[in-house]
Amino acid sequence: MLKNKSLISVSDLDKGDIEDIFEKADYMYQNMNNMRQNEPMKLKILSTLFYEPSTRTRLSFESAMERLGGSVISMADSKTSSFSKGETLADTIRIVESYSDIIVIRHPLEGAALLASRFSSKPVINAGDGSGEHPTQTLVDLYTIKKELGDIENKEITIIGDLKYGRTVHSLLLALTRYHVKINLVSPANLKLPDYVYKEIKNKLDVNIIDDIEQSIKQSDVLYITRIQKERFTDKNEYYKLIGSYKITKKEVEKMKENSIIMHPLPRIDEIDVEVDFMKKAKYFKQASYGIPIRMALISMIAGD
Amino acid sequence: MLKNKSLISVSDLDKGDIEDIFEKADYMYQNMNNMRQNEPMKLKILSTLFYEPSTRTRLSFESAMERLGGSVISMADSKTSSFSKGETLADTIRIVESYSDIIVIRHPLEGAALLASRFSSKPVINAGDGSGEHPTQTLVDLYTIKKELGDIENKEITIIGDLKYGRTVHSLLLALTRYHVKINLVSPANLKLPDYVYKEIKNKLDVNIIDDIEQSIKQSDVLYITRIQKERFTDKNEYYKLIGSYKITKKEVEKMKENSIIMHPLPRIDEIDVEVDFMKKAKYFKQASYGIPIRMALISMIAGD
Amino acid sequence: MLKNKSLISVSDLDKGDIEDIFEKADYMYQNMNNMRQNEPMKLKILSTLFYEPSTRTRLSFESAMERLGGSVISMADSKTSSFSKGETLADTIRIVESYSDIIVIRHPLEGAALLASRFSSKPVINAGDGSGEHPTQTLVDLYTIKKELGDIENKEITIIGDLKYGRTVHSLLLALTRYHVKINLVSPANLKLPDYVYKEIKNKLDVNIIDDIEQSIKQSDVLYITRIQKERFTDKNEYYKLIGSYKITKKEVEKMKENSIIMHPLPRIDEIDVEVDFMKKAKYFKQASYGIPIRMALISMIAGD
Repeated sequence: MLKNKSLISVSDLDKGDIEDIFEKADYMYQNMNNMRQNEPMKLKILSTLFYEPSTRTRLSFESAMERLGGSVISMADSKTSSFSKGETLADTIRIVESYSDIIVIRHPLEGAALLASRFSSKPVINAGDGSGEHPTQTLVDLYTIKKELGDIENKEITIIGDLKYGRTVHSLLLALTRYHVKINLVSPANLKLPDYVYKEIKNKLDVNIIDDIEQSIKQSDVLYITRIQKERFTDKNEYYKLIGSYKITKKEVEKMKENSIIMHPLPRIDEIDVEVDFMKKAKYFKQASYGIPIRMALISMIAGD
Repeated sequence: MLKNKSLISVSDLDKGDIEDIFEKADYMYQNMNNMRQNEPMKLKILSTLFYEPSTRTRLSFESAMERLGGSVISMADSKTSSFSKGETLADTIRIVESYSDIIVIRHPLEGAALLASRFSSKPVINAGDGSGEHPTQTLVDLYTIKKELGDIENKEITIIGDLKYGRTVHSLLLALTRYHVKINLVSPANLKLPDYVYKEIKNKLDVNIIDDIEQSIKQSDVLYITRIQKERFTDKNEYYKLIGSYKITKKEVEKMKENSIIMHPLPRIDEIDVEVDFMKKAKYFKQASYGIPIRMALISMIAGD
Repeated sequence: MLKNKSLISVSDLDKGDIEDIFEKADYMYQNMNNMRQNEPMKLKILSTLFYEPSTRTRLSFESAMERLGGSVISMADSKTSSFSKGETLADTIRIVESYSDIIVIRHPLEGAALLASRFSSKPVINAGDGSGEHPTQTLVDLYTIKKELGDIENKEITIIGDLKYGRTVHSLLLALTRYHVKINLVSPANLKLPDYVYKEIKNKLDVNIIDDIEQSIKQSDVLYITRIQKERFTDKNEYYKLIGSYKITKKEVEKMKENSIIMHPLPRIDEIDVEVDFMKKAKYFKQASYGIPIRMALISMIAGD
């Protein structure tokens, strides 16, 4: 049960929890536009504390809370905040916890959300802590696969891009260890999956580190593309060469098997050609939209009566 | 009918549309403080996406939506936003459209609101796109004339100030072509109305480009003053000289005919002396306040059931 | 009666007003989490205009208004605002007053809130005006003493730290002249209480300027600690020496008498050791939490029907 519990990491959730969340999210999905009629969260206040800007994530949580009839108070950016006056995060949290019933925190430092949850008597949801976790994004990813393919089990999932720094990818892989799936990993040499993640998953998943992107594209159920950040390359020419060879265009999509899908945690820069957006397999905007029912489900399970 | 339609330009509206909006605005004006009792927008979420700051416009839309019992999610400034990470506006809109039922956008680039509306399945309201349009401001201007003078038809309107860069003035002039009005234009030589606007209106309106501000002041029903921005002048002395000769003071107002009014889209810097504020003809703060019923009307006509 | 009145200074309130506010705050404290059920402020909009960031104060007002079922529109920071385009505060207020029913303003300049109230037909609450006042903080301080010690009368209160620049301390001392209390003042030589405050209180309160912090700690009912800002010292070594001698640690707290309490307006930097946080006498986070019922009381008394 999630009631009154903080959500800091996907490892806080077992398979049963995830299934409960998805069941609740299905209900929210059906009633997304009329839940506010009965205002199940009418008496609750959610605060968003964003120590680094992430408009997408913040608006998604706020939309979810509003749809449940709850209230939102919001710090959109710590730079416009007195919280930068040298106050510790622990102190800030002990103050803000008296203002709201549930706290959503985004912070540039790994471990910040966990620390916040230790000092708060109110539940805390981690909305991204640096290179750490972003558990609600992972739930959205899993939910997208389930909704679009009917099931997560026995799927073949190819993950392409920056596997080294991509917090999203690490959390997703760890979460997928709860299922029987085949994983193909494709990345440039300097952006390979870190050893500590690989060790965690290699015995639990059928993991294949591959070069043959062509073959993976043909046989996968899910192509999960991630952003490759230009900043990771000292030689910018290398970046442009790479982006060229990894870019998904109409040509690649046409090789994909029936009922397969393309996902991306967004923002997308050059990794997917815009002409792909209009193809049936492109599900990355749909994926973003599943953020609403997932977050509605989480908020109501955590802060609900 | 405006239902589910985007509002990008005043040219989207014919005279009948404008009359419908004003009728609805009259109703909102009467019930401004108790519409929230029945919460007609209870199930709706409005998002404000401001890619440049405009607190006045943003708060005006948010106040209007709250008065209708709806919810608001807000990006007050893109600088504190992940939307600056290189994501295209098209992508951002396709994400945010799943978070809300109606999108209000402000953007520094002309055409941005139109582009947003093309990629959004939800209606978009243009709250200013660079040197482009700001249709809700124009509706507020027209509505002010109607409310304060009883009618727009057959009025004499003198527009004074920066006619070159003033987006507000261009939209207002285009909208006024739907009425029989006499227009007097007064501006410094370097801030004349652009040819492309003049050509658009010259056959539809009785337009007079004049120097004799004295005479215009005496016979006009409306003095519409606009801000002259110091940045437009390389020689600052010229600016100060000019401001001196264009400034409206008590002396000028006393020459105005009975039942005439002074308008200004605000913010006002030096163009109107503060002693004028307390005179009966000064309607620029009243004008700002009409932003609420006009925006309430628009939101409910566009997003209502 | 506070109905429709602005609250700019604690001197606006006599002892009866303060008692009325505390009585209402008691009610709010009891019903903090279910007032929203009946939405007493359902038809009201509160606007927060923050010309300098103060997340704590802003979120506290917003949480209070949401708990009363009212709406909030918010300018979190003037730097992201068009209000910096050279518009006067008087003009801004005359616009915003038509958007909301009650205005909360924070401004870096002393007197700004008073000026705002003069130009507004809607009530204005001062949420801090530079070195001026912050009356709601003072009410929270007084309320904390009353709630935690049962009464304010006949208490001994030791105030330690920056007595020169601390707006909070000045307001608190002025407010305490309404009660029979003993005041001990402890500060570094360069941060003494200004003469103009001292003159105001010396005949109304039993004020003692002391050096013997040990004795004060032992006999006080309240230790009120304030932040000493490093910026006040040209010689940083002097700051560190000072902070060392003023810091409250477990050792000092153990010398305090029974039923005494430690307060701090927060944020706290080095003045109180973190190990003190877990001691029974530490009431500074509780103090912050009283901000909610106090502000709920004020809003409903000022904007209520």
